[in-house]
Parts: sequence; C-alpha cells; structure tokens
Amino acid sequence: MARALRGAKGSVVSPVATIEVLRVGEGTRIDRVAVEEPLAIQVQGRTIAVVMRTPGHDEELATGFLRGEGVVRSRAEIASVHHCSLRDGDDVVRVLLADGKSIDFAALQRNVYATSSCGVCGKASIDVALACAPGLTSHVGFDPQVVARAPDILRREQQLFDQCGGVHGAALLSRDGAVLAVREDVGRHNAVDKLMGWALLAQQPLDETLLVVSGRVAFEIVQKALAARVPAVVAVSAPTSLAVELAARSGMLLAGFVREGRMNVYAGAERLKPSSNAPTE
Amino acid sequence: MARALRGAKGSVVSPVATIEVLRVGEGTRIDRVAVEEPLAIQVQGRTIAVVMRTPGHDEELATGFLRGEGVVRSRAEIASVHHCSLRDGDDVVRVLLADGKSIDFAALQRNVYATSSCGVCGKASIDVALACAPGLTSHVGFDPQVVARAPDILRREQQLFDQCGGVHGAALLSRDGAVLAVREDVGRHNAVDKLMGWALLAQQPLDETLLVVSGRVAFEIVQKALAARVPAVVAVSAPTSLAVELAARSGMLLAGFVREGRMNVYAGAERLKPSSNAPTE
Repeated sequence: MARALRGAKGSVVSPVATIEVLRVGEGTRIDRVAVEEPLAIQVQGRTIAVVMRTPGHDEELATGFLRGEGVVRSRAEIASVHHCSLRDGDDVVRVLLADGKSIDFAALQRNVYATSSCGVCGKASIDVALACAPGLTSHVGFDPQVVARAPDILRREQQLFDQCGGVHGAALLSRDGAVLAVREDVGRHNAVDKLMGWALLAQQPLDETLLVVSGRVAFEIVQKALAARVPAVVAVSAPTSLAVELAARSGMLLAGFVREGRMNVYAGAERLKPSSNAPTE
Repeated sequence: MARALRGAKGSVVSPVATIEVLRVGEGTRIDRVAVEEPLAIQVQGRTIAVVMRTPGHDEELATGFLRGEGVVRSRAEIASVHHCSLRDGDDVVRVLLADGKSIDFAALQRNVYATSSCGVCGKASIDVALACAPGLTSHVGFDPQVVARAPDILRREQQLFDQCGGVHGAALLSRDGAVLAVREDVGRHNAVDKLMGWALLAQQPLDETLLVVSGRVAFEIVQKALAARVPAVVAVSAPTSLAVELAARSGMLLAGFVREGRMNVYAGAERLKPSSNAPTE
C-alpha cells in the first residue's frame, strides 16, 4: 500500500517526501511527492493565518503574506521574523513588528477570511486592492523578447518540479532576464508570497522587475504583485477576468499564454518597448 | 489597451468575459477569459466566507463548501439555499439551516480562516479531517480501465476550458465511467465544492463514485471528497504528501499522473479490481 514516509519533524523538513507507489502494470516503486504541511503565521503573538505550504523559506512566506495583506510595506516595519518548530511538530513563524507599527487584526482577519477579496463584488475588490496599494506610477518598459523568454527562464530553475511535479513555480527577473529569485510551492500564492517576502527582507526594490509564474493568473497574484510594486506579470497560462481588470487599472503589464515565442497581452501593452535597452522614464 | 468588458451585473453573469487582447506580432483581437468574481456565502444571515469563483452553480458551491466544512451532511439539514444578486452588484448565496440544526460559527471561522486546515501540524490536520468525516468503510472497487480513462472523460466535458482555458475541471463518474456531473471554475476547490453541493442537493449518494480532477491533488481535495463519502480520487497530475496521507488513512483510492494509459496509485490500491464488473462487497 502506498504510504507517505514523512520526515522527522522538529528539524528542517524537506520539500520532497519519498513514498511507495504502485505503477499499474509495472509494480511497486519508490517515488517522490511535494511535501504539503501547515504553517502558522503569528504576528505580535497572535495566529493570523495557517497556510498549507511546502516547507522552506517559511520566514519569507510569512513576510510576503503580510506584505500582500498590506500589513507591512518595508523591512523597517519588521522587528524580527523567526521560524520555530515546536516540540509537537507544529511549524510557526513569529513576526514582531517594529516599535510604533500597529496592526488592525479585525481588518486583517476580514481580508484573510475573504480569500484576500476585501469586498464582495469584483469592483469593490479592485477598489480595495488599489486603496491598499495605489496604481503604479513608474513607466518602466520591458523588452518583448525578455517577456517571451521568461517562462523558459523560470522552467530551467524549477528544481523541485523536476523531482516530483505537482508544484507551482514563480520567479522575479530583472529587465534583462536575469533571475533574482525563484521559489516553488504546492500553493501558487505561496510561491509568490515567498518571492515578495524575500525581496522585502533583502530590501530588494522590485519596481523594475518582472514576475513570472508557471500557471494561471487569478486576481490574488496581480494583487500581490501590485502590493510589492512589481510592474509586470507574465504567465504560461491564462489570466482571469478580475486579474485583467486589476492589472489594467493599476498600470501593470499582464501577459499570458507566453509560449513558443507567442504571447497575449491583456493589460499594460504600453510597457512593451522593443529594444534591448528600454528606457526608464 | 486590453480591458475586460464585464457583463451587466444583477442578472445571471456569464462564466466567460470577452476582452480585447494584443497578440504580439499579430495585432489586437477579441479573446475570452474565465470570469472570476467574489461570492459571499451566508448561513443563518451571517457571512461566513467570500470565495473568488467563476459565476454559475453558486447554490451548489455554497452547499458544497458547507459540506466540506462539516456544517451540513444531508439535504435534510438545509431549509433553503438562495442566490441573490443585490442592487450594487454583490452576489450572495443565503443558506438557512433546518429547524434544530445548529452551527458553531467560531469553529467554522477557525477552519475557513486556516484554509480548511483545522490544526497546525499535518498530523493534526489529518486527525481533524477524520474526526469530521470518518474513514470510508465500504469496500467498493474500481476497474483500472475506468480509472485510466477518467481524465479523458473529464476532458471531453470541459466546455469552459475549450472556450478560454484557465479553469480547472472536476467530474463525478459512476463505476462504469458514466458522467454524473461536471463543473469548471477558476478555483480548483470551487469546482469540487460545486460537485459535492450538487450531489447533496440532488440527494445523490456518492459512495460508489469516482472524483476526477484536471490538475493536482492537495490535502483539501481529498478532505472534501472524504466529507462527501467519495471513495476514489483520480488526477491528471501529482498529489501532495498530505493528500496521500489522508487518502491512505481514510481508505480512499488516490491515483495520480493518470495519462496515456499509465497511472500511479498512491493510496487504496486494494480498490482496484480488474474486471468490468468489480463487485461491491
């Protein structure tokens, strides 16, 4: 019987688990699956969310989650971020905010509760997202050739996917296509949160970078990019209607179905500047 | 500039939106994207969740969501389920429970809040899932040939995907591969909630059916199948570690990477009964 052989808890948990699997017609073999485990995110001693994620980069995940929710906007607003593995196997990241920085737990809970949709109708969601993070004001451009190559650049970096499949990948690229960071996770939102948390903790500005994701683009992905001031989102697959609307409203480049040299531009086409040295205005 | 042209609200909203898109190298054209809009789910007059979903089958979605959370287990526990489009464009499904049926809002909020992970560590998540919905006791078997064909059967029914891509599909099949219901949504969990809600409202027993999903299988998919007493989950792509553990613990068949006649069986291999008329014990 196939059964997951889980790693010992309390130490660093691998993102990959080894399991026994029956391949029909070929018999039993050892295979790998991506690990999915809950992580509690605590702020000022209070648990504000439990996310199902692939272990690793947990402090970035918590930080990026808080950035996406509008709780923190800069490294200076965070006093400390610590990952703890409790004795009973629980994984927790504890975030303490800087002196003078406050948090509205009730508003945060409403947001998280509502799957990051702060209103009920789509227009309200977009208005609230733009109120949390205003539209992009820079006019940085991107070379279409770099945009077209972005999914392939990401794909080459997806080491976890190569081992077990079943995980989403996301990367932040510079305007010339250099990889700044790559993260993989069973949750597409987690991969993006890890990236945005990495950038915030490393004090890496993102206003001239491009976010590339391995799958589709729903509202929340655009909302997280906007909160982190990323002006371009590139996806292998399709966007949703609300993702397109928020990208258009915020001045973001949104390209989908970027495959084999082709791409669909759903918003922000004015950012495509066909030159290897597109100017920053 | 590409911009979503949203349908008029207050009436039935289409699952597909028409937008203007720039296809680089070919110029502007009209294209389609899957609609993503928030839906509030109210129980006894109180909003318990707002989910981002593709419009359509909203009453089923709300019912299936509540079934997955363990709030309702049968049609008899529901007095009424009504979809309302409010004047300001908000979409709400209002659920009233049957006389004598109570709801623990605090526990529900904790669950929803925690992305349906009721505990912090994976073991706790599994224990809580099994406490909400005990392991499967029937020994119904499935023909490997039906399992192998399930993704193709689903794929033929994915009409929304054919129009715009970017949506997940899920179907409930009988043991001989007949399609009982198919649902598509921008959210993979929503597609499954819609199916389970359909079955509950239609009083369709699921204890001899198979759930097939177009993508990957994370913990929550197995948990929703278990809550609805579905003994088999079949996926085109990979499961996560926690999905495999919950399936193994609950006695569920879990097959992944079911493609081109091949499949990996991660749990419940004893349910594979190679005959066109596998017996129900």
